[in-house]
Amino acid sequence: MKMLKSMLDTPCLILDIDLFEKNLTIMRDFAMQHGKKLRPHAKTHKCPEIARRQLRCGNCAGVCAAKLSEAELLADAGINDILITSPLSDPGKIARAGVLNSKISGLMLTVDHPEQVKMLADHASKENPLDVLVDTDPEFGRTGIPFDRAVELGRFITSFPQLRLVGVQCYAGHLQHIPDFQERCAASSRLMSAGAEVFKMLNHEIDTCRIFTGTGTGTAPADVLIPEVTDIQVGSYCLMDAEYLAIGHGSVNFQPALRMISGVVSANHAGHATIDAGTKAIYVTPGAPALVIAGGQVQREFSYSWDFGDEHGHLLFPETVSLQPGERVELIVSHCDPTVNLFDELWIVRGDEVIDRWDIALRGCCR
Amino acid sequence: MKMLKSMLDTPCLILDIDLFEKNLTIMRDFAMQHGKKLRPHAKTHKCPEIARRQLRCGNCAGVCAAKLSEAELLADAGINDILITSPLSDPGKIARAGVLNSKISGLMLTVDHPEQVKMLADHASKENPLDVLVDTDPEFGRTGIPFDRAVELGRFITSFPQLRLVGVQCYAGHLQHIPDFQERCAASSRLMSAGAEVFKMLNHEIDTCRIFTGTGTGTAPADVLIPEVTDIQVGSYCLMDAEYLAIGHGSVNFQPALRMISGVVSANHAGHATIDAGTKAIYVTPGAPALVIAGGQVQREFSYSWDFGDEHGHLLFPETVSLQPGERVELIVSHCDPTVNLFDELWIVRGDEVIDRWDIALRGCCR
Repeated sequence: MKMLKSMLDTPCLILDIDLFEKNLTIMRDFAMQHGKKLRPHAKTHKCPEIARRQLRCGNCAGVCAAKLSEAELLADAGINDILITSPLSDPGKIARAGVLNSKISGLMLTVDHPEQVKMLADHASKENPLDVLVDTDPEFGRTGIPFDRAVELGRFITSFPQLRLVGVQCYAGHLQHIPDFQERCAASSRLMSAGAEVFKMLNHEIDTCRIFTGTGTGTAPADVLIPEVTDIQVGSYCLMDAEYLAIGHGSVNFQPALRMISGVVSANHAGHATIDAGTKAIYVTPGAPALVIAGGQVQREFSYSWDFGDEHGHLLFPETVSLQPGERVELIVSHCDPTVNLFDELWIVRGDEVIDRWDIALRGCCR
Repeated sequence: MKMLKSMLDTPCLILDIDLFEKNLTIMRDFAMQHGKKLRPHAKTHKCPEIARRQLRCGNCAGVCAAKLSEAELLADAGINDILITSPLSDPGKIARAGVLNSKISGLMLTVDHPEQVKMLADHASKENPLDVLVDTDPEFGRTGIPFDRAVELGRFITSFPQLRLVGVQCYAGHLQHIPDFQERCAASSRLMSAGAEVFKMLNHEIDTCRIFTGTGTGTAPADVLIPEVTDIQVGSYCLMDAEYLAIGHGSVNFQPALRMISGVVSANHAGHATIDAGTKAIYVTPGAPALVIAGGQVQREFSYSWDFGDEHGHLLFPETVSLQPGERVELIVSHCDPTVNLFDELWIVRGDEVIDRWDIALRGCCR
């Protein structure tokens, strides 16, 4: 007997396998056309099976993790080439990174401060050196060392024989959702070019410094035009969400593979109903609505509001529509990353059939 | 050797056991003084050990769960008296509620629609009847039947011998955070009095209808003055958060027992730094800031901003302050419920010592 979507307990996340595989292919081919590799970011999906499929799809330099705890579980899942994109600053975490470095050969860390470099040096050896990238700050102030001090930090790394400077990172997280495509591309080109200057100097001085990495789904079309960029840390393209669907992506056209199924809990009023997906199921992203789907199409006259709180979602629709308790709707979530992080599994669907269940094994790995 | 707070990996949630126990005592005594029972809501803490301690503290009619999946795990943890405060409308969930009803003797469900009543009747028997409350809508439109149709729904329940009408619920979730104490109390008194009228009519007609339940931490001081109220569904009082600390609570004075420890990841700028608690660790609550604690005191000149996204928090402070990578801060989270739901454990502390670890076993139970 087939398992159908209608049998799933709600709220739940489903992944349309055909749209997902199509997204992987589109991004792989797009990067190849521009002579770049992919380094897909696992912070988006938190799912080792997705990471494995991204690698298997090809043209990947490895994967990214945002946090050490994510990298540890990806390594447990058999993945060898992992870049941790946030600097590690805690002595306990750095000690664990040393352990992870002796377990997999492809671990790479980022640093943005001389103190981190010293701590890392204490947990590496000449026999088992740690591969390190200089994280540069694209004028956001979140992580990364300002461009004008970055070369100096790179040189400092090379003063420790137990560390190996392998590259430069520049990730402009604040640009990814600029609505206007041209404006977004112009802003990213300017900042990535500044990062490229840092990379060129270090690449010229230091043989092992060969990676210039960064980029997200939003700025990839601009960043692949920077000659120095070696690989792109795209994440959301594989799942997609309402935020990314709302903005332009140039010639690439990713599909909303990730959906949520939610059930109507209460329907005592004309024009609106209460569904079982509140803010504990679909992450509040101020200003970014979830989209409601029926018959495979986004229903523009339906909207989702957060004002029913943690346990319930507020679904608004024309008064001509009637929903009954127990009926179901599908939603495209506002921001895929934190919503995926609220669930333990993705149900994999083809049409109405549920064909698999993938563990969101990195769920909750914020350390 | 003692385990200290400073040894915990960050970001993490800690619970100050002394403040927590004090909060339990204050609320117990407050309800007793007004001749009411507590029915503490587990949606806040998602932690069976907390539910057990609330019951052990005394003066409880049972506990509340928001979702069936929470109730199932509370029952697994040995808790017998559980009210599920959201109506169940899905046939699969209603079948599971029937199973749960044969496992524990103290299960109670809420309904707000005749179709739910019919579905529930199909999963109960005269030998093992289901206890049901009419959920009334305090002019919010989320769940509950409007007051003027509630008595009729109550009578409809009594037409099924396999169902037993045991009470009326009225929970005004939209009033709990009204900043002005007098305004909040006035709004709640008006709505709870309207709910009380429904209860009086059904209580007069139907012997078994003896419960009038509702209330949260914000409106409890007003609602305990309504004579018909039998028990109060308070949740946040045991943990507390920045949202509840920002508003007045009359004569009761709950303490911030829940804290987050977060580590500084990046500190390359004067006046601000990047910590490891982003929106995947501290739930975005628009308009509600997290509070930063140092030396046991809230530091008013520090603030937390969400603008560093999913993985990082943005900590702002006077330029005279200097933070280094690897330093730690404590935060009072904005809204306890959805933040607790992001973690798997509470670390229990007394002063600087970690004395226990409690499972947030209901984490992720949004079904």
